[in-house]
Amino acid sequence: MDLVIIGGSDAGITAALRARELAPDVDVTVVVADEYPNYSICGIPYHISGDVPDWRSLAHRTRADIEATGMRLRLSETAVSIDSTAHIVQTHGSDGDLRQIGYDKLIIATGAVPARPPIRGLDQLGATDGVHVLHSMDDTFSLTDDLDKRHPAAAAIIGAGYIGVEMAEALSARGIHVTVFEQFPQVLPNTLDPELAKRVEAELAGHGVEVLTGMTVSSIARDDDGPAGVLLSCSDGSTRRADVVLVVTGVRPEASLAAAAGAQLGIRGAIVVDPRMRTSIPDVYAAGDCVHTHHRLLPSPAYLPLGTTAHKQGRVAGENAVGGDATFSGVCSTQVVKVFDTVIAATGLQDGAARDAGYAPLTVTGSYDDHKAYYPGATPVHINITGDRTTGRLLGAQLVGRLEAEIAKRVDTYATAIHYGAGVADIGDLDLAYTPPLGSPYDATQLAAHAWLRDR
Amino acid sequence: MDLVIIGGSDAGITAALRARELAPDVDVTVVVADEYPNYSICGIPYHISGDVPDWRSLAHRTRADIEATGMRLRLSETAVSIDSTAHIVQTHGSDGDLRQIGYDKLIIATGAVPARPPIRGLDQLGATDGVHVLHSMDDTFSLTDDLDKRHPAAAAIIGAGYIGVEMAEALSARGIHVTVFEQFPQVLPNTLDPELAKRVEAELAGHGVEVLTGMTVSSIARDDDGPAGVLLSCSDGSTRRADVVLVVTGVRPEASLAAAAGAQLGIRGAIVVDPRMRTSIPDVYAAGDCVHTHHRLLPSPAYLPLGTTAHKQGRVAGENAVGGDATFSGVCSTQVVKVFDTVIAATGLQDGAARDAGYAPLTVTGSYDDHKAYYPGATPVHINITGDRTTGRLLGAQLVGRLEAEIAKRVDTYATAIHYGAGVADIGDLDLAYTPPLGSPYDATQLAAHAWLRDR
Repeated sequence: MDLVIIGGSDAGITAALRARELAPDVDVTVVVADEYPNYSICGIPYHISGDVPDWRSLAHRTRADIEATGMRLRLSETAVSIDSTAHIVQTHGSDGDLRQIGYDKLIIATGAVPARPPIRGLDQLGATDGVHVLHSMDDTFSLTDDLDKRHPAAAAIIGAGYIGVEMAEALSARGIHVTVFEQFPQVLPNTLDPELAKRVEAELAGHGVEVLTGMTVSSIARDDDGPAGVLLSCSDGSTRRADVVLVVTGVRPEASLAAAAGAQLGIRGAIVVDPRMRTSIPDVYAAGDCVHTHHRLLPSPAYLPLGTTAHKQGRVAGENAVGGDATFSGVCSTQVVKVFDTVIAATGLQDGAARDAGYAPLTVTGSYDDHKAYYPGATPVHINITGDRTTGRLLGAQLVGRLEAEIAKRVDTYATAIHYGAGVADIGDLDLAYTPPLGSPYDATQLAAHAWLRDR
Repeated sequence: MDLVIIGGSDAGITAALRARELAPDVDVTVVVADEYPNYSICGIPYHISGDVPDWRSLAHRTRADIEATGMRLRLSETAVSIDSTAHIVQTHGSDGDLRQIGYDKLIIATGAVPARPPIRGLDQLGATDGVHVLHSMDDTFSLTDDLDKRHPAAAAIIGAGYIGVEMAEALSARGIHVTVFEQFPQVLPNTLDPELAKRVEAELAGHGVEVLTGMTVSSIARDDDGPAGVLLSCSDGSTRRADVVLVVTGVRPEASLAAAAGAQLGIRGAIVVDPRMRTSIPDVYAAGDCVHTHHRLLPSPAYLPLGTTAHKQGRVAGENAVGGDATFSGVCSTQVVKVFDTVIAATGLQDGAARDAGYAPLTVTGSYDDHKAYYPGATPVHINITGDRTTGRLLGAQLVGRLEAEIAKRVDTYATAIHYGAGVADIGDLDLAYTPPLGSPYDATQLAAHAWLRDR
């Protein structure tokens, strides 16, 4: 049996590994468009910052490790079409040759591509002009080459999502003055409520990052007076200059190959899959940033591209492609991002999204010590907790605190509870760990739940 | 309506606060045997170590804060009997007077007392001989006075449970050479499997603590040749000398008052309560270290004295005593302890306890990075995960790692999952938070679950 996988990032490689693990007799071929299979895209900011000096370290596994599992990698080879009747994928190698690969089962893991915001002039500028996107290793090399050669003094980052704020830290670490442009009135608009976002904005400002919220860049052009400088015309009427520009305004699914083969597309053009990660085409699965995702708190699938989700979906697709019966159980959009010495984490739905989904949300804000105040080093955990007034169901939580406040794992308690459909009241009943240096008899996560119950 | 609560520690004060919160018209009186209501017993080691210089900081709330809620505190007053027919508690004040307090509802929160191991001669020695227990603020003052006055060079700690190992750190911090005697072949026998306990023993040894496992102290006597020195005769035939001895071999429930009033006692002499924290006596509730506890993985109640549990049970008792209908949902014996730079956490059942309870346990050991290895500072999280071979149910987990590895909150993910009756396979499906500096696409907790599934 031949399993072919298109895509060598999180979903594709995880699918291939799972298939090899469960069915060593299955022939697994992974078609990878570039030379960098199984690279940690989430790690790119830490290479650019200098925290990870060697880009090769960003590989989850080396090429040798991957091939030792017995799968075949076809690098620098791009899938150009799928004949689902004949069960053939046609590819285009770096040598220019077209090739045909037959499959019994196919997994599409083509990922996503950077979204291009509607900024006039943007489509005429690229890396040679100092205007970069950041999604692949080639994008990374292009940016680091530019930074190494030109030593830019001032960077503009368009978009204050999690990559935008991570890159603000990364470029600051290289001594570059950073200005972040965000069209929404706050940073991390899809992650945090406004009052918590203010804490992140303060953290950025405290490290010298200029944050311009509610500011749209309407047009962009080369500054022909400067060495590869760029001029940005802004919604406040001002024009700002930057030596280097990073456009990080999210991604859209790369589903063109699947669509051309007849796969049904859904929200935001993502490939429609069932809980077994099957597309609408027989014998064809899909996983990762190219597919829609089941959110456990939403009635309809959403587009939620994240590495964690891609791994889980890839694992399910890989298992099922070799005859298994795994089910993707969905996500609750858990995220965490580190910005300098602050950690931001969220899971579930923000208040507005919950209302849009038909819930009756109530969000309660509070701050609680990360551990007993008498033990040295206590620091506040700022928590917004959202529940349904009618049913008491836990709908979401956002946490912001210092690096040492174990924010990333505290959100996991809420994420686990949401997975099981918890009520807010259940949180207070959980038997969580306590010792004075590391918590409280009722953990911060539980005190937030008690506060919600009082306010309900 | 009069609510009387006997006991001013975690369960008693939490019950009183909850009652006042829900029913401001109820008259709440708390009878406290000493002068220290609402003190954090768990914090005592950190006062002795010097981390918390002022013992007053150990109060969860000040006396003024407590009284501002409108409850009445009767300090240094000991309840001596309960007339459950007449609904009267008789107390004994520090002035020697007997008093009678009528109640409509009564909550017994008398806590626990230190267990005394069967060591010959121990009953003839006390604080003036340099032999201490450590359970109350008076015990604490007695020990710190002794340490301050005599500046002992060598301490013996009998018992390597969590207080024993915390106190090994605390006394070491004061420059005292510590020897820990543990009759079981490992430290933390009720918390950790042997191979993980070895890591804790190494941490203790690395900080100069002498750890003698499998070593029973058979008799103890004053060393009349030295200044308040003590001689310990050991099961290996040796005799060892210490300037100060700490006996921390666990606690037993203080249920004598309840028993004399006719309350049914259960396991290890703890007061039997129902899920609403009612004793067998009408209008009398009980909570905290004096009662038995429902363990969510065990068919019968267990004796599991812990501050977190006392808070939750007190909250339920306080709510129900004023007409509420709260239920204590049980625990899964989650614990965490910090020993120098190592954190140990556990939840659920150890392999042997699981077998005793009728499960078919399989425990799988592994070590996983706390975050992506490419990001600086990655450190291993050592995990033993136990599940039922037959049903796949998650039965327990133990974690050991460095202070910065977020061990305390990682165990909470398992504890939350166990609360909901999770299978081991479910752990891999959880949507946990990931960013390279703080985790992995599959968190260490999830990789342990995958390892278990492979070995099953």
